[in-house]
Amino acid sequence: MSVSFVQGLENVVVSETEISFLDTDVEKIVIRGQDLIELSSTKRYLDIVYLLLEGELPDESKRLMLQNDLSEKQTIPKELLQVFSLFSKDYHPMDAQRTGVSILANYDSYIGDNSAAMNKQRAYKLLAQLPTLTANSYRILNNQEVISPLNDLSYSANFLYMITGDIPSEEEEIIFDKSLLLYSEHEMPNSTFTARVIASTNADLYSALTGAVGSLKGNLHGGANEAVMYLLNEAGNVKQFEKILYEKLQNKEKIMGFGHRVYMKKMDPRAQIMKESLKSLCNHDGDDTLLEMCEAGETIMREEKGLFPNLDYYAAPVYWKLNIPIPLYTPIFYCSRAAGLSAHVIEQHDNNRIFRPRVNYIGKQY
Amino acid sequence: MSVSFVQGLENVVVSETEISFLDTDVEKIVIRGQDLIELSSTKRYLDIVYLLLEGELPDESKRLMLQNDLSEKQTIPKELLQVFSLFSKDYHPMDAQRTGVSILANYDSYIGDNSAAMNKQRAYKLLAQLPTLTANSYRILNNQEVISPLNDLSYSANFLYMITGDIPSEEEEIIFDKSLLLYSEHEMPNSTFTARVIASTNADLYSALTGAVGSLKGNLHGGANEAVMYLLNEAGNVKQFEKILYEKLQNKEKIMGFGHRVYMKKMDPRAQIMKESLKSLCNHDGDDTLLEMCEAGETIMREEKGLFPNLDYYAAPVYWKLNIPIPLYTPIFYCSRAAGLSAHVIEQHDNNRIFRPRVNYIGKQY
Repeated sequence: MSVSFVQGLENVVVSETEISFLDTDVEKIVIRGQDLIELSSTKRYLDIVYLLLEGELPDESKRLMLQNDLSEKQTIPKELLQVFSLFSKDYHPMDAQRTGVSILANYDSYIGDNSAAMNKQRAYKLLAQLPTLTANSYRILNNQEVISPLNDLSYSANFLYMITGDIPSEEEEIIFDKSLLLYSEHEMPNSTFTARVIASTNADLYSALTGAVGSLKGNLHGGANEAVMYLLNEAGNVKQFEKILYEKLQNKEKIMGFGHRVYMKKMDPRAQIMKESLKSLCNHDGDDTLLEMCEAGETIMREEKGLFPNLDYYAAPVYWKLNIPIPLYTPIFYCSRAAGLSAHVIEQHDNNRIFRPRVNYIGKQY
Repeated sequence: MSVSFVQGLENVVVSETEISFLDTDVEKIVIRGQDLIELSSTKRYLDIVYLLLEGELPDESKRLMLQNDLSEKQTIPKELLQVFSLFSKDYHPMDAQRTGVSILANYDSYIGDNSAAMNKQRAYKLLAQLPTLTANSYRILNNQEVISPLNDLSYSANFLYMITGDIPSEEEEIIFDKSLLLYSEHEMPNSTFTARVIASTNADLYSALTGAVGSLKGNLHGGANEAVMYLLNEAGNVKQFEKILYEKLQNKEKIMGFGHRVYMKKMDPRAQIMKESLKSLCNHDGDDTLLEMCEAGETIMREEKGLFPNLDYYAAPVYWKLNIPIPLYTPIFYCSRAAGLSAHVIEQHDNNRIFRPRVNYIGKQY
């Protein structure tokens, strides 16, 4: 038997969606009919959350209601933090996040109800709790004190505060918020596909989103922002960074932060926004080193490989400047993406057909 | 834009595999070139585990080595059981299993190594620990004492012992083992696809298998064996069962335990084996009620809908006769399937291309 098939389902359409589309012809990341890059200049992460889950942008009062609603829900069960204290050995922040999301299902009294209304409530609660879970599971791992959320801070300011322990400046808050906005949704990457495949059995939102953490743990999907930062730190200056990149190119090693299966011929438009944020942070602290390194790397990769930076490439130095520990870069990506993932789970539950494909058997004959 | 696509990827080939194939033309469940139904008459679950992970059947000494190896590894970290004690509220056994598999990742010192050799070791350890985790998380939920594994029992006898608290008879052990054998692997159902999609990011075996628990939690994939048993118990006798089935058919309600996307026109060959096991258990205890009910239901569904029973339909009353609590039926299915899932993750890691499909955008225009 010989059957043709597309490895990795590259360019294969697996689903209809009203949520988002990467329109490479016109270079747009379309979210519910809106251009994410355009939105990023005037909107905040919570606007996009609302857009993803409600289908339209909120007015001022709705955005405020959402902010208040999430503030009220951001405390997590104390037993959840106790779980992380139980492990004497090191654990990976993504493992903690995967376990944490899985455990949150235990606290949902309506777990069997996959209606859109209930799923939305569930999603908002999860989005409220994820920053608290993510920041504090990492704090426990590092023997730092747990930091309770501050209800009077904005969503992003509070998230950054629980990570660093310091209340961020307005500039830091806005830039961090922008990174969340840019990471919030991106059509059908592996983690979103994972969530939809799981949800298609009628499994609950937590099951789907737990699976998505696992997907993002793989270095072909998540982790690129962390890898970029380790490389930048290893180099330390422009000359050394260029040297390392040329060496890696010569050894045909993969260099993280470049290229994207969908954006082949152009720069990931999100990367440009984060590059501007990096410039702004460099201006502020007077140290341009990271910006210069990144620009040098961008030039080399474009000239040598025709590859362009993706969001992770510029999010990494931005997160560094915001004093975020490197192992949290991907967990933060996940927290933001939980908005898009939830929208996809709701859509899958609302118009479902279980994913049950076939194989091309090439094993021992019988 | 309008793009044709296949909802649920029905009949779409997504992967090559040497592991298994449902050959409906010749009515065979092929595992590494062997017919699972034929194997079930002479082989045990651990033989199939070995076949799945090593590619060939073990000889007597290799099977014994595997049995001993798993016996040595079946203890789980005490903190893992403490986690389940932390939750004051009820939790779903599948949630416990999902969380448990996720946590086991914390204890793997070689987590970044996805080589086949390391993945195999990881899989054997997980297969050893899953019965202990599954039986005891459920015991804790029900305020029962934790039961430590008994190293001198066979894999299946020990599993059943930790569930029921009683050392099973040889007949019970063999029948339970047969059910594990039949559940062990089944080509590309949703949970296996989930595991491969996650593994395709280079995510580790635990991430992939945590996702698969979530997939099985959905009632379009797992849970059918449980639903069947609740219905049988609700009815209590043949007449009442027939009445309920006719009512459900009239109301166009889905009846669990019948039909299968791949086996359309024939009985799931695994169901026949479990039916024989049920007969044997009924002979032994002298109570044919469940067998008669199941046969009556089989006739009705064949005549009225042209549908045939699947494995879950006959596994349910068998598990009931084995004194297994109903909420553990699907977690047990998962424990067995972890063998097949692991083989698929290993294969995915060995010849990988990340799953990253596309969508047909039907949302608001832009």
